[in-house]
Amino acid sequence: MVNISRELQPEPCILVIFGGTGDLARRKLFPALFNLYLEKQLPEQFAVVGIGRRLKDRGEYLESIVASIREFSRKTDPGHCADFLSHVHFFQMDITATESWDRLQEYLLDLDSKYHTQGNQLYYLSVAPQQFIPIVDQLKAHGMNRAAGSWRRLIIEKPFGKDLTSARQLNRKITGAFSESDIFRIDHYLGKGMLQNILVIRFANSVFEDVWNYKYIDHVQIRASEMVGVEDRGAYYDQTGALRDMVQSHLLQSLTLIAMEPPVNLSAEAIRDEKVKVIRSLAPLTPELVRKQVVRGQYAGYRQEKDVNPNSKTETFVAMKLYINNFRWAGVPFYLKTGKKLAERSMEVVVQFKKPPGVHYFGPETQLDPNLLVIKVQPEEGVFFRFNLKNLDSPEQIQPVEMDFCHNCGGKTSPEAYERLLHDAISGDSTLFTRWDEVEYSWRFVDTIAEAWQNSGEEPVIYPAGSWGPAEASELIKRDGRKWVRL
Amino acid sequence: MVNISRELQPEPCILVIFGGTGDLARRKLFPALFNLYLEKQLPEQFAVVGIGRRLKDRGEYLESIVASIREFSRKTDPGHCADFLSHVHFFQMDITATESWDRLQEYLLDLDSKYHTQGNQLYYLSVAPQQFIPIVDQLKAHGMNRAAGSWRRLIIEKPFGKDLTSARQLNRKITGAFSESDIFRIDHYLGKGMLQNILVIRFANSVFEDVWNYKYIDHVQIRASEMVGVEDRGAYYDQTGALRDMVQSHLLQSLTLIAMEPPVNLSAEAIRDEKVKVIRSLAPLTPELVRKQVVRGQYAGYRQEKDVNPNSKTETFVAMKLYINNFRWAGVPFYLKTGKKLAERSMEVVVQFKKPPGVHYFGPETQLDPNLLVIKVQPEEGVFFRFNLKNLDSPEQIQPVEMDFCHNCGGKTSPEAYERLLHDAISGDSTLFTRWDEVEYSWRFVDTIAEAWQNSGEEPVIYPAGSWGPAEASELIKRDGRKWVRL
Repeated sequence: MVNISRELQPEPCILVIFGGTGDLARRKLFPALFNLYLEKQLPEQFAVVGIGRRLKDRGEYLESIVASIREFSRKTDPGHCADFLSHVHFFQMDITATESWDRLQEYLLDLDSKYHTQGNQLYYLSVAPQQFIPIVDQLKAHGMNRAAGSWRRLIIEKPFGKDLTSARQLNRKITGAFSESDIFRIDHYLGKGMLQNILVIRFANSVFEDVWNYKYIDHVQIRASEMVGVEDRGAYYDQTGALRDMVQSHLLQSLTLIAMEPPVNLSAEAIRDEKVKVIRSLAPLTPELVRKQVVRGQYAGYRQEKDVNPNSKTETFVAMKLYINNFRWAGVPFYLKTGKKLAERSMEVVVQFKKPPGVHYFGPETQLDPNLLVIKVQPEEGVFFRFNLKNLDSPEQIQPVEMDFCHNCGGKTSPEAYERLLHDAISGDSTLFTRWDEVEYSWRFVDTIAEAWQNSGEEPVIYPAGSWGPAEASELIKRDGRKWVRL
Repeated sequence: MVNISRELQPEPCILVIFGGTGDLARRKLFPALFNLYLEKQLPEQFAVVGIGRRLKDRGEYLESIVASIREFSRKTDPGHCADFLSHVHFFQMDITATESWDRLQEYLLDLDSKYHTQGNQLYYLSVAPQQFIPIVDQLKAHGMNRAAGSWRRLIIEKPFGKDLTSARQLNRKITGAFSESDIFRIDHYLGKGMLQNILVIRFANSVFEDVWNYKYIDHVQIRASEMVGVEDRGAYYDQTGALRDMVQSHLLQSLTLIAMEPPVNLSAEAIRDEKVKVIRSLAPLTPELVRKQVVRGQYAGYRQEKDVNPNSKTETFVAMKLYINNFRWAGVPFYLKTGKKLAERSMEVVVQFKKPPGVHYFGPETQLDPNLLVIKVQPEEGVFFRFNLKNLDSPEQIQPVEMDFCHNCGGKTSPEAYERLLHDAISGDSTLFTRWDEVEYSWRFVDTIAEAWQNSGEEPVIYPAGSWGPAEASELIKRDGRKWVRL
């Protein structure tokens, strides 16, 4: 066992959650904070302030936090809950009113002296995207973005813009107020344990490191499937779609971890230097290539969902083939696939190896299954490796068998992504957050697809809810003599 | 799933078992034949004749066969047992009396016409080594070794000689009577499913095939441990010892499968051509090197065993380090270890990979565990792969985890080695039998060790019964900065 030395530790601070009564705070942030608290991963000098529009007294707020911990936390420990709540506060304000911000400043000053948080403040923007800029403006206007001898940090939720232009505008605003090292752009998939494990699997295991290139790998599949539809997020989703909501962020981020060169070291900057090189090396997609390599789907019934345009062309499904134009990956297709209302909920990365040259020994080449390394991100967390073995019962047959490592199959729960991400932001470690240039180049790439779709005037193909997606997605990979690996 | 085309099929014949009332026949051969029969792997025109010295009538013999099937067979099926027994006969003879051989010939002629076995006869020498030559002489003297339009084959049990000289003498005798392709020298380990699987693991899986050389593999361990002592085989064993009994045969054979170059095809000759090249490439051991690289042990209490010389220097334990002087394996040590009265019963091959170059990322190089591929031959049959993963519960730790494939862990039984070997001999497939040159070069290699021991006059080191063997065996590998992998 090896302990990775982490120089950065959680620091005393106040965490200010804008949107403190919202869904994300309730389902993810407070349960995550409570688990960090149980595991003594929070600083001792620590306070959380949930900010909401409607008047609530603290007692009422704490009750709602207890309820959300009970409902959504992977651990519940009534004994420690009261201790934890002693760090939690509620502040009612209208973010558009300057007067509120003056009050907030005073309030935080009070808490700071009470909790000895040394003037450090972490602002979490857990609000609708259109509120990002107004809040940052106010933080800056009130001088809350900087403080001599203390730090002020910003966590900003997805989506970071809806295209390159709007992302740039947002970025200009926030970098005008905070320095890059104090900005934590969330892509919560990066908080998932098995995505972080990609680098360990690659660089701490010679067997995999040695074969991690075009000579040995046939292709890679990165898939994120949901069973749910848009639920009550129709208004947001219909303006966004799967390309912007999933591909620009989670799928391209996963791709960078699979494909990046070894970084100089494991610092946030060195890792992100390599990740951005992968996105910059993506083979550009012309409108012609978008037509051939990108499938755009919409589930049947989407247009009838609440808050969705009845003529919507928004895609709820994307499948695509990408190439990375560098020496490691020349000629290796990366197939990405994501969608809503599919037959299963899962996220995994499938690395399919080439067939060995000696395959002709054992029978017609087309029948022997290639080696697969599958990194299961959710709901199962683990790794499996498929290889060929002679059947010990009937020695005339070679068949694929699986070696499996599953972390959470025994009903064990792993830390939630937000636990790790909150911990890291409090510690000032931005490794698992996206740097501006990653965002920028991702949008640049994704925008060419969005524009090609818009200019083509074509409609997304409709696929049945609960299916494996449109037939065109199977065709996309089948044309290359491959198939979506069914686990 | 791929079906390996096997051109050779079981052919009509009479199997004549010399030593038909012996231990091997009772424990292994008849249970194996019965299982083959159940699985319709025997020819329809088929008879077995057990040969014994003492008079028995057939009924008495069949009763003993039923008892041995009941006791030792992995499957018992009373319904089919009677059918099977209709193929089984007993013939009483004194092999030293010419008259007996005349009777045997007549008897086999009768059976041949009754079972339509087309004159094909397979002679199984399941007798003490000193009887091998007398039986072959008689077979030849009576012209039973050849028959126009039919085949006559010889299966000869271990040991094939006790050194190069005696092996050559034996070989001259049998090749004077049978052609090489009709001689089946048993090394029953080659009948074990997982040893056969080594070639499939290597050549049907690109991930392993690509890294199977000195660049990626740090070293290999081949270990066969027994918990039993010599039991009632003291007289034989004391003349033989672990070097001749285990290393010359099973361990060197396993080594050839791990180390061989890809054969031209999967024919018996092509595979054995490559296996013999491995043995010929073993770096010769001078007396000096034997002293440094070979450990010779004897369990405490061995000299008090029945039929063992009270001053015996016979080794019951050997550990050694070998090198293969070729381009694939230059500089890679192969550690072999075998012994009786050890702490466990097992046979496995451990392939330890080199540490990846990027290991310094994760902490001091010496702490990160290397990748292991373990081929478990017995009692568990399967494969496991050890690799490094970040602990999902405490992300500051990298620790080794295992992916496991176990064929027989659910209480399932695999075919016994002798099932496969008998089936193959009846089919004329000698892939899993050792060719003369393999035997020859193995003895040549092993003799240098035996001679060095003899000339040194040193005693074997005594190790406690039920231990992991002598401390010197741990030292042998520890000196190189390695250790025997404990599973």
